Amino acid sequence: MIDTVGLDADDTLWHNESIFADYEERMANLVARYLPDVDFHERLIELERHNVSIFGYGIKGFVLSMIETAIEATEGRITAEEIHTIVGWAKEMHAHPVELLDGVAETIEELEHRYRLVLITKGDLWNQETKIAASGLADHFDAVEIVAEKDEATYTRLLERHDIAVDQFVMVGNSVRSDIEPVVSLGGRGVHIPYHLTWDLEHATISPHKSWVELSDIRQLPPWLADQ
Amino acid sequence: MIDTVGLDADDTLWHNESIFADYEERMANLVARYLPDVDFHERLIELERHNVSIFGYGIKGFVLSMIETAIEATEGRITAEEIHTIVGWAKEMHAHPVELLDGVAETIEELEHRYRLVLITKGDLWNQETKIAASGLADHFDAVEIVAEKDEATYTRLLERHDIAVDQFVMVGNSVRSDIEPVVSLGGRGVHIPYHLTWDLEHATISPHKSWVELSDIRQLPPWLADQ
Repeated sequence: MIDTVGLDADDTLWHNESIFADYEERMANLVARYLPDVDFHERLIELERHNVSIFGYGIKGFVLSMIETAIEATEGRITAEEIHTIVGWAKEMHAHPVELLDGVAETIEELEHRYRLVLITKGDLWNQETKIAASGLADHFDAVEIVAEKDEATYTRLLERHDIAVDQFVMVGNSVRSDIEPVVSLGGRGVHIPYHLTWDLEHATISPHKSWVELSDIRQLPPWLADQ
Repeated sequence: MIDTVGLDADDTLWHNESIFADYEERMANLVARYLPDVDFHERLIELERHNVSIFGYGIKGFVLSMIETAIEATEGRITAEEIHTIVGWAKEMHAHPVELLDGVAETIEELEHRYRLVLITKGDLWNQETKIAASGLADHFDAVEIVAEKDEATYTRLLERHDIAVDQFVMVGNSVRSDIEPVVSLGGRGVHIPYHLTWDLEHATISPHKSWVELSDIRQLPPWLADQ
């Protein structure tokens, strides 16, 4: 029996990676004026893989990494005015409206009467709180947890804090690495609902097995839960 | 009787504003090559006052605001290589060692046996967690709370979460605006321990009264608490 459902937010409840991809494309177009042949995405990811351990997750670290990559790739030929434009993108990204994925609102309303719902999201505290408030979903959750990293230590702490038995817990999210793997390792279950885009740093290699399933749409979650 | 002591972290337990001031000075020197007469600090604070509602608190938002101010103040004459240097400062600031203020380590050790200690800090989740771990103080606290903003709503939520009676709670910190005012408004008490620098956005105008006191050194805290 499942009594508590943890839900990831970015790319599980609302669109997120698509916004990052949109601004990365603008950046690539800007750099392409200087270097038509450079693979901007490849260079950015290589730098982010290093920078994420310093900056953590979120828009501000992403934009700082974009600025750094653009300056290095163009060997300093990008202009200050163009970098000004990039800083403006950081503000636009923070102000971007929260767009719920299809089926999220009605599914959350259906689940909240039967399960304890905990929103568990990682990233930038300020931006995540802003988005949670803007989503209109906050009142449906019994608890909201914004964490720096989603690993076994974090989930262990959250299960303890909310007095959740791990074998009665399922985590639902779009990232196998952050939402599924650590929970399954602890003895919980996972429901992976892929988003059409996955950030390179979230790629994982394990495949579904008895402790976790893959669903294609959040609307399949209530009937799956009812079968457990 | 006080049973729970809340402690701010930046500029209360360890140096912080002095690091920001150091990098702001480097920035001002860099801009001064282009504009010897501009008051960089005034321009930066004016922009931060606006940007903090978008970016929140912390190093990354500060550095983005510095880049934006530098480009605007120099009307785009600052070079990409100089902006590259500024992005490098963001990394240096994140990697800066945590330097405890005088008397902190022994005072915390003395207090932890008599009171429930809760560390309450605002700002960037990733950076704050890194600093708390590096401080060596984490094990002395009963709870650690990193919040986006320190206002009455936040303190109300924390008092509830930890089952703290507000009249048995005292908050200790260097910012009257963030550490003292909201707690005193809720019926709690405050101990203001000024740091030698105060960020302009933390300035407050109220003065000590019966619900809060000002101490000059954290080593005065245990005897003050014993007298309550």
